[in-house]
Amino acid sequence: MDLILGQSVTWHSAFLLTSSGRHIAIVGFFDAENIRDLGVYEQVIGYHKGLSKHLKKILETLQPKNIAINFSERDVAADGLTLGNYHTLLRILEGTPYPEMFVSAEAIIATLRGRKIGTEVDRIRRAITATEGLFAEIDAFVRPGMTQRQIAKFLQLRIEEEGYDYAWDKTGDPIVTCGPQSKTGHASPGDIPLENGHTLHIDLGVKIDGYCSDLQRTRYVLDDGESIAPADVQRAFSTVLGAIQAGEATLRPGVPGWQVDAAARGFVVESGYPEYRHALGHLLGRSAHDGATVLAPQWERYDGICQLAVEEGNVFTLELHDLIPERGIVSLEEDVLVTNDGMVYLSNPQTEIRNISAA
Amino acid sequence: MDLILGQSVTWHSAFLLTSSGRHIAIVGFFDAENIRDLGVYEQVIGYHKGLSKHLKKILETLQPKNIAINFSERDVAADGLTLGNYHTLLRILEGTPYPEMFVSAEAIIATLRGRKIGTEVDRIRRAITATEGLFAEIDAFVRPGMTQRQIAKFLQLRIEEEGYDYAWDKTGDPIVTCGPQSKTGHASPGDIPLENGHTLHIDLGVKIDGYCSDLQRTRYVLDDGESIAPADVQRAFSTVLGAIQAGEATLRPGVPGWQVDAAARGFVVESGYPEYRHALGHLLGRSAHDGATVLAPQWERYDGICQLAVEEGNVFTLELHDLIPERGIVSLEEDVLVTNDGMVYLSNPQTEIRNISAA
Repeated sequence: MDLILGQSVTWHSAFLLTSSGRHIAIVGFFDAENIRDLGVYEQVIGYHKGLSKHLKKILETLQPKNIAINFSERDVAADGLTLGNYHTLLRILEGTPYPEMFVSAEAIIATLRGRKIGTEVDRIRRAITATEGLFAEIDAFVRPGMTQRQIAKFLQLRIEEEGYDYAWDKTGDPIVTCGPQSKTGHASPGDIPLENGHTLHIDLGVKIDGYCSDLQRTRYVLDDGESIAPADVQRAFSTVLGAIQAGEATLRPGVPGWQVDAAARGFVVESGYPEYRHALGHLLGRSAHDGATVLAPQWERYDGICQLAVEEGNVFTLELHDLIPERGIVSLEEDVLVTNDGMVYLSNPQTEIRNISAA
Repeated sequence: MDLILGQSVTWHSAFLLTSSGRHIAIVGFFDAENIRDLGVYEQVIGYHKGLSKHLKKILETLQPKNIAINFSERDVAADGLTLGNYHTLLRILEGTPYPEMFVSAEAIIATLRGRKIGTEVDRIRRAITATEGLFAEIDAFVRPGMTQRQIAKFLQLRIEEEGYDYAWDKTGDPIVTCGPQSKTGHASPGDIPLENGHTLHIDLGVKIDGYCSDLQRTRYVLDDGESIAPADVQRAFSTVLGAIQAGEATLRPGVPGWQVDAAARGFVVESGYPEYRHALGHLLGRSAHDGATVLAPQWERYDGICQLAVEEGNVFTLELHDLIPERGIVSLEEDVLVTNDGMVYLSNPQTEIRNISAA
């Protein structure tokens, strides 16, 4: 709905886009003027008592072969039709040949969202640059003893001051973990303080002009007498970095998503760390998880979307973490653009561990 | 999802609430801590590769007779399950007896949302009081010559300064119409200025602490030499007011929604005005259209929800308008609470036309 309308409607509505380029809207009488004002639907029908007769009449005129409707098991961005509205649609069209013509619109939506045009890439890049600016501010701000909550609060204040939107739910944007006691995953920041000898990990994304960033960075807090991070931190960091680079070397048009994940996953396992329990990457754009294709293992949860092929113009995250039992999470996430024969970084990748000192 | 969870989850998730009071959540591994932290699900399963085996196991343990799932043709607030997720659910449960047990959860949701407890009524009242404050500010602010856009902008600025949320989409909150050239319905405010001899109509709602108001008020701009509104304005106003009072006299527990609408509609038609083309009222609460029951005529669009009976604890809007060809819209909307034998106003009803003078 965001892609084909960009606003809300009050009553049952139908938006019909044909392969010959026709755009027809059937909406409640009260919404009709607003839809006309968009200037993208050449025919806008504002109904009074119900839409069924208008919808049937339009379908008779169009004589469709297939009717792609917005449901999908694999792509949440193509799965907007509710079960109740689907039942209503079937009821309205009972006794007509149209329900037999229903197919999923997922392939159209996945293509539309997945293949980014230049303007879209520029907007994503702008969100990434803003996020990198916030990471620079955090480096200047953060001191041992601060809690996850304090660090998260600083970032949220800055996001709101700048007038950015959150790239995902504010309760988990940013995710801030520090030390081995931190909850992993999408947990909200709590009261655990940042201690010497522990890692600080932040997952942060902003939305600017409707497009998102999604980055993770890791810092290490030097312990008494240390001037560089110890060997276990260095080794975990190298493994995460190496896995991302293994994914990078595999990512190009035509490769199924699971193969990119497998390259990174293999590197992690060969390095002696356990497998990460998520996907290496997801599409990024209008939302933090934008479109179908995932760079993910062939698990039940990713079935049907990890087999999809990478396409030129896709923007992916590349992300994974290691956990150091005594120190905390070491995690990176980069944002990259698929080109005609490989990929380029949209973010400035973190290639070495950065340290925070107590002073 | 808002009612039973109040936050978002990342992967396929199932939330099971039983009639014996059990609360079980099956969510992705990464979301599990956040759901545990809510403290309302006594069993939280965080899965790694997929939810199907966990869901089947839990269902075997529970031995349900019926499984109410969140789809509804009649109540958008009970229609959250997408068609894609429904297909996934059917696929997961293929070969089990559970799909045969599916029924709609609409009756549970409608009751839960429709019957307001004291705290909810207090919150709605607070939103109404704030909205009435904004109308008082508009009365002090507005002058002939101002455009719809200026008036709307003033209100939106004040809403944002106070930290209120919008009760519905910001593009149509407030709706500001002035004069006969104004678009009717949910049109966004435009550049039409407020002129002498015209009406000003505002539809405004705010959300505070998660609960909404929804009010409409009408003002008349005195023309040169006028000290009171002319007869056609007075007559239109009396008709709108009388229709609301006719609805008021009918509104009590047990009465089907369409009967309340019919009382108001009949008054309008008997007064010589055309029927309004919408419902007399809708439920109000967590959203501006909250729950199933509508006070609406028996049109296709309202089928199944205008037959539902009014219940004690329901909060309804009562709203309608007349259009005066040379002057503009005359419209009122009040917010009322259904008691055990009738109703009380939550808003301070507008009972006479108020005038704006050029000076």
